[in-house]
Amino acid sequence: MVLGMGLINHVFSEDSLKKLKVANLGIGHTRYSTSGISELENCQPFVVETLHGKIAVAHNGELINAKQLRRKLMRHGVGLSTSSDSELITQLLAFTPPLENDDTPDWVARIKNLMNETPTSYSLLMMHKDIIYAVRDPYGNRPLCIGRLISVGSMSGKGKKNSETEGWVVSSESCSFLSIGAQYYREVLPGEIVKISRYEVQTLDVVPRPEGDPSAFCIFEYVYFARPDSIFEGQMVYSVRRRCGQQLAVEAPVEADLVSTVPESATPAALGYAQKCGLPYVEVLCKNRYVGRTFIQPNMRLRQLGVAKKFGVLSDNFKGKRIVLIDDSIVRGNTISPIIKLLRESGAKEVHIRVASPPIKFPCYMGINIPTKEELIANKPEFHDLAKYIGADSVVYLSVEGLVSSVQDSIKARQENQNSLKTNKSRVRKIGHCTACLTGEYPVELDW
Amino acid sequence: MVLGMGLINHVFSEDSLKKLKVANLGIGHTRYSTSGISELENCQPFVVETLHGKIAVAHNGELINAKQLRRKLMRHGVGLSTSSDSELITQLLAFTPPLENDDTPDWVARIKNLMNETPTSYSLLMMHKDIIYAVRDPYGNRPLCIGRLISVGSMSGKGKKNSETEGWVVSSESCSFLSIGAQYYREVLPGEIVKISRYEVQTLDVVPRPEGDPSAFCIFEYVYFARPDSIFEGQMVYSVRRRCGQQLAVEAPVEADLVSTVPESATPAALGYAQKCGLPYVEVLCKNRYVGRTFIQPNMRLRQLGVAKKFGVLSDNFKGKRIVLIDDSIVRGNTISPIIKLLRESGAKEVHIRVASPPIKFPCYMGINIPTKEELIANKPEFHDLAKYIGADSVVYLSVEGLVSSVQDSIKARQENQNSLKTNKSRVRKIGHCTACLTGEYPVELDW
Amino acid sequence: MVLGMGLINHVFSEDSLKKLKVANLGIGHTRYSTSGISELENCQPFVVETLHGKIAVAHNGELINAKQLRRKLMRHGVGLSTSSDSELITQLLAFTPPLENDDTPDWVARIKNLMNETPTSYSLLMMHKDIIYAVRDPYGNRPLCIGRLISVGSMSGKGKKNSETEGWVVSSESCSFLSIGAQYYREVLPGEIVKISRYEVQTLDVVPRPEGDPSAFCIFEYVYFARPDSIFEGQMVYSVRRRCGQQLAVEAPVEADLVSTVPESATPAALGYAQKCGLPYVEVLCKNRYVGRTFIQPNMRLRQLGVAKKFGVLSDNFKGKRIVLIDDSIVRGNTISPIIKLLRESGAKEVHIRVASPPIKFPCYMGINIPTKEELIANKPEFHDLAKYIGADSVVYLSVEGLVSSVQDSIKARQENQNSLKTNKSRVRKIGHCTACLTGEYPVELDW
Amino acid sequence: MVLGMGLINHVFSEDSLKKLKVANLGIGHTRYSTSGISELENCQPFVVETLHGKIAVAHNGELINAKQLRRKLMRHGVGLSTSSDSELITQLLAFTPPLENDDTPDWVARIKNLMNETPTSYSLLMMHKDIIYAVRDPYGNRPLCIGRLISVGSMSGKGKKNSETEGWVVSSESCSFLSIGAQYYREVLPGEIVKISRYEVQTLDVVPRPEGDPSAFCIFEYVYFARPDSIFEGQMVYSVRRRCGQQLAVEAPVEADLVSTVPESATPAALGYAQKCGLPYVEVLCKNRYVGRTFIQPNMRLRQLGVAKKFGVLSDNFKGKRIVLIDDSIVRGNTISPIIKLLRESGAKEVHIRVASPPIKFPCYMGINIPTKEELIANKPEFHDLAKYIGADSVVYLSVEGLVSSVQDSIKARQENQNSLKTNKSRVRKIGHCTACLTGEYPVELDW
Repeated sequence: MVLGMGLINHVFSEDSLKKLKVANLGIGHTRYSTSGISELENCQPFVVETLHGKIAVAHNGELINAKQLRRKLMRHGVGLSTSSDSELITQLLAFTPPLENDDTPDWVARIKNLMNETPTSYSLLMMHKDIIYAVRDPYGNRPLCIGRLISVGSMSGKGKKNSETEGWVVSSESCSFLSIGAQYYREVLPGEIVKISRYEVQTLDVVPRPEGDPSAFCIFEYVYFARPDSIFEGQMVYSVRRRCGQQLAVEAPVEADLVSTVPESATPAALGYAQKCGLPYVEVLCKNRYVGRTFIQPNMRLRQLGVAKKFGVLSDNFKGKRIVLIDDSIVRGNTISPIIKLLRESGAKEVHIRVASPPIKFPCYMGINIPTKEELIANKPEFHDLAKYIGADSVVYLSVEGLVSSVQDSIKARQENQNSLKTNKSRVRKIGHCTACLTGEYPVELDW
Repeated sequence: MVLGMGLINHVFSEDSLKKLKVANLGIGHTRYSTSGISELENCQPFVVETLHGKIAVAHNGELINAKQLRRKLMRHGVGLSTSSDSELITQLLAFTPPLENDDTPDWVARIKNLMNETPTSYSLLMMHKDIIYAVRDPYGNRPLCIGRLISVGSMSGKGKKNSETEGWVVSSESCSFLSIGAQYYREVLPGEIVKISRYEVQTLDVVPRPEGDPSAFCIFEYVYFARPDSIFEGQMVYSVRRRCGQQLAVEAPVEADLVSTVPESATPAALGYAQKCGLPYVEVLCKNRYVGRTFIQPNMRLRQLGVAKKFGVLSDNFKGKRIVLIDDSIVRGNTISPIIKLLRESGAKEVHIRVASPPIKFPCYMGINIPTKEELIANKPEFHDLAKYIGADSVVYLSVEGLVSSVQDSIKARQENQNSLKTNKSRVRKIGHCTACLTGEYPVELDW
Repeated sequence: MVLGMGLINHVFSEDSLKKLKVANLGIGHTRYSTSGISELENCQPFVVETLHGKIAVAHNGELINAKQLRRKLMRHGVGLSTSSDSELITQLLAFTPPLENDDTPDWVARIKNLMNETPTSYSLLMMHKDIIYAVRDPYGNRPLCIGRLISVGSMSGKGKKNSETEGWVVSSESCSFLSIGAQYYREVLPGEIVKISRYEVQTLDVVPRPEGDPSAFCIFEYVYFARPDSIFEGQMVYSVRRRCGQQLAVEAPVEADLVSTVPESATPAALGYAQKCGLPYVEVLCKNRYVGRTFIQPNMRLRQLGVAKKFGVLSDNFKGKRIVLIDDSIVRGNTISPIIKLLRESGAKEVHIRVASPPIKFPCYMGINIPTKEELIANKPEFHDLAKYIGADSVVYLSVEGLVSSVQDSIKARQENQNSLKTNKSRVRKIGHCTACLTGEYPVELDW
Repeated sequence: MVLGMGLINHVFSEDSLKKLKVANLGIGHTRYSTSGISELENCQPFVVETLHGKIAVAHNGELINAKQLRRKLMRHGVGLSTSSDSELITQLLAFTPPLENDDTPDWVARIKNLMNETPTSYSLLMMHKDIIYAVRDPYGNRPLCIGRLISVGSMSGKGKKNSETEGWVVSSESCSFLSIGAQYYREVLPGEIVKISRYEVQTLDVVPRPEGDPSAFCIFEYVYFARPDSIFEGQMVYSVRRRCGQQLAVEAPVEADLVSTVPESATPAALGYAQKCGLPYVEVLCKNRYVGRTFIQPNMRLRQLGVAKKFGVLSDNFKGKRIVLIDDSIVRGNTISPIIKLLRESGAKEVHIRVASPPIKFPCYMGINIPTKEELIANKPEFHDLAKYIGADSVVYLSVEGLVSSVQDSIKARQENQNSLKTNKSRVRKIGHCTACLTGEYPVELDW
């Protein structure tokens, strides 16, 4: 079993991959440390011995009613040795409901019991003997997808007869499959319980949401978290980001000489903006190699330093020019200011900021580590004259409607297309997205 | 709270001591890794959150019915994340019996409940808020004693008015107190539950043994494990070992030129033997500094190497002489052979081995990591001609009776003395010792 | 003194920068490990005690006649404790020539003596007491430039009166200045000896090349090594790379749907190519964050693995399209093959490779770690049908003439411009570049 | 070649021993870090490339005229990269004297040249190709001896026909041989140059001292540094120490109940004292396992702490008794005070200190790291009433004459014995010892 904490390249080491091939099965969730606590204590998966043998649980997300569930378990006499949801989930699964026979643990019943006790937010893997159960919460808030490990010889022969399934991997992001020699197979659906064994991937059940509730996949995965080559809901993240840039060009055009990007995360949006408004796309900053992504560094001071050392300036490309600079998001407002200052000092005539997402205003209780309300620039007085505050000639965010349509239009188009083909599939599942950090509208009651 | 695993000098670092002084309370059990598994997983103390707040448990020993208790907990729906008895004890304490009110946890009732479920072998500390409960099993199999931290200024003024208690420490061995500036206060009695707070040490209860059962303190603590300056049952370990040597001189005299020791653990016995038989005490081996004690090294290969590099030979002291070499115990027989060979090659005329304890023949289920029955030299065919096997001119072990009287005589003398003084204390608690590894007589049924 | 080996961000730590500010002076060369040996032994700077106090030497490059110079020193009775040119240079500087008085070391005379003994390739720093001597070899093969540390308060006020010089830094690449809060001041000229103290930067001498020899700055710094925001010979590396792309579009056009890049080093050339030929610039690959640059990893096996895990595929951007993929160089040919395979498997209709530099055919003896002749794809039989070998529809390299004009045209234009202004400066220094790895024409005799 | 710094058990790891067996030759000096600087820079052996190939030099000691020799080399134009005598020796050996032909380095001539330039204090090894030269300075100040590695099979068959020499090792202390499976062969004599190759050990020359000068082996090796099982000048260190104790009993008797030791270094002297005066030898302190030797810890604060945690007290052994406590030396006086206090608090009636060596009063310039004059207790005002200062009932040191006779008597007896046998060997080499730290009489002029 692959057990570790860190970036995916570290976790899936050569050795662990070799073991994966032997075992055909393995679990290991690797995301940014979202709760700010990277302690060993919270290392996943969490393994316990139960009456029916060992089970291992790894998960992504944050149980909306964790506090209530912890109290319930402790009232039952269970001591909890960590603050992690993984232990909580594991003990909830270990707890034997009266409905089942002692000798034959009904894991699916236990998982459904767990899903009834907590509606969101989690994608989880549970391993028992040679079976992995992959589960996504009914709202589908956190991503989860399945990849197929194929034999090395047949890797190039995609789709050919001789490609042979050597095992399955489950990940939050499809992009991780390529680097370990696996192919994207499919997403786990909201509420779906999938059983994965050596030879098959089988849907055991799909737990429904309350009548009328739309699904609630985290829209910030599209905006910021996911790698551009990841696929969610049938579409590439890169394409969504480019559409956000195009939409932004429609919503907030500006007279300028060139469009550029805060590399590299805003580049798809910048190319979309440039294409839509007909201005040339020009690079004004280059990344200083070997400096990690700003957002991940957990410590405030390091973040400040990281920004200062992060970019090189390509001054000859923009001296005396008016720049439209696209950023993917402005969260605290302390990253963009020094960049604008740098560009001006290096000769930019004007710097107009266009942000390819709406302002973040509300906390996330579903697993994303967003700064406190007080730290968010959108909740500060300076937000009323943001351009002045950050030193820009102008600054405009994408509208919530613009973001939602950039995300949902092509999903809906595809759905309608499929519906016209398969008319017998009458009930279309209602598609929605969690925009809580932008709108304050949470998919479920907070004190569920 | 002092949390760590290792030798006591490492665990009680300067920093943790400083914290102790502030906190006045702290727990931390440090013994040789007896179960052979030094994994972080088994690191003590084990801390869990319960309905009534966090509790921390550290213990020494091995529950005789751990397997049954684990199964009981798992049947109740509790998943166990480690193989340690510490977690087992912690979850048993967290489990709420029906007798108690939700808001006021009756820890003493829970501890007594635990003691009813398992008779031995454990000495344990439980910490909740600002209270430590120190508990020794009814048989007193594992040692436990209390020390008093006094203010630095008053440390030299032992017993003087101005000495002020700054806190309490609890340890398996009294010898550890000196090195952290604490004074020996008293032993925890078999079955005793002691409550320790900032200002007082209070006996809450003494859980009795079944009628007629004697106490069963591990006799091997005297023979091998404890440091010579430790005090158990009112006597210094060094004194017991010297008496063992004197008794051995009575039981197994030999005509020789000098008495010597396998340094350093057999030195008290060797001095006792030499004194009793009137032969000169002479050093024949010197310890190679910075090589750890053989027994502790968990790995077989390292142990072999360690022996070879452990000693220097003081050949000028014994050339042409007949040596009586005292060892504290012969467990596997592979340490003494190369020593005898070394002495002979360096000029010894005769080498007679006298062992200051009886042969170990049986496994220990109470916390001491004894080799398997097959590894014990006393269970091998070679034992019938042991002198030949190890290359000695003769070899004699101390008798079980000799050991027991060396341990118990002075305790009994003291008891009788006290009884004659306080005649009103009619019922003398029956003193016994666990000699299971020597005799096969375990203090309780093994499948309790 | 800043002493270390690694990437520039590591070497110039916060602490060492703080010390720099106190000391006002400091040296530290940090380049890719070019000779393949990253041992501590070769750590720079090299410090020795001489008759006149300690001197420290750091350098970049490789002495073309190191072997002869080592032998000369050893014949003089000096033992050499490392294989580094730094020690060699240090001992050559320590060696007292007869011309000088014992009490007043004439470091400039010693440096000139060293430059007479070895014509190239080195940029070096020597520190003695509070003076740094910055030296570039007469051919200017390795880069060297000076930066000015200004007081934090005045950093934004570039060029303003109140900016105050707080110290000087010397670096191989100007781009490193920004991240430590320094400003680009100027290049050290070929053959120039610059004395740097607290308050001044002063040219002590310029050692000439043999009559008629052009300068020989390494052209591969423009093509591959330098960061795009570095400035050499008055031009930004990014601009040169874009011109290479434009020139490549003229030399090797192709009918296709889109132009793309192997990110990120080929992006300037790809944007230049796209602009010149009028095709859209589209991203087809995204970098896998946190995987280091392929070229730097010293170990062959790691390089192979690194490539496989390096990129994500943006398949929706190019399905069914004909791609012109720009790469900055093809050295061994084993990086580009799996990329082409990846693109085809993900739906590319055609993949045409255009390389923004000529093929590397010859070894470098001047400090760049180029694979052996046998490893270079241009020297293998497969080079005759390279497209087939790497799996491309076509592959064309930039011509040597095209590269040289992309590099030199704007330098010459500027020179002529200056000459027309300052007609009294009659003798224009002959500008050239070292293209030895491409053409086999080395700037000096190899057995100098 | 075995290269490292640390305790001998670490340096001669299993792996390096395996290599030794293959190579048959290896050098590596391991002593306590005597100059207080444990930096990597001073790591031995020092290896340089010379005109005649690589040479490696390891040494023990301190050149009495190092400063003058460093200046001489630097005047010759050699930069010195470390402050170590090893580099100094290496460069002096690399320096080609005019007398020798270029192609055939006469290492012996070079070594003799070195010995003419510096009289003491050094024992050194030089390795060139497959030859090791082992050299001891003419005064023999530092120890050096040769051991024979024999085949494993024949190790027990010491002196038997089938023992086969597998290689040679050279060490400062003979005791290190046993732990690596080697046998003591012989000492290198003062001034001797020994050539060691695969099959032979050959004396090349013996460089004489100035007429009349006695040899000057460091007497403190007997008193403190050497392990008791080491052999110098034909006698075991343990025997010398016991004779010191006997002599001390003659010089400074005391009426008391028991004789004891500060374990473990003073134990031989204590046993000698007890035997001579007829008092029983009793242990009063036990060593706290796993705390390193006080003297070695380089840091003052650690030393203080180390003392406090170093010992356990065997109070039952001495309650109400008068103790004569033997210590091997009192250097600063801050170790013995807390011990005396501990014994008194634990019930000792009287504590008389007897020191088995004379007081240290003078600095050592020959390789032993003695505290500064100001730190030495013998140079402080408190020395005049030392018993009061340290809290003892009385304190007496061994006389210098007593120490010298304890060391020299048996050597002289053996010499005379040999002379009477071999009368033709007329000129007896004059035996002496360096007692500079006790008497201020240095074997050579300090500004040699």
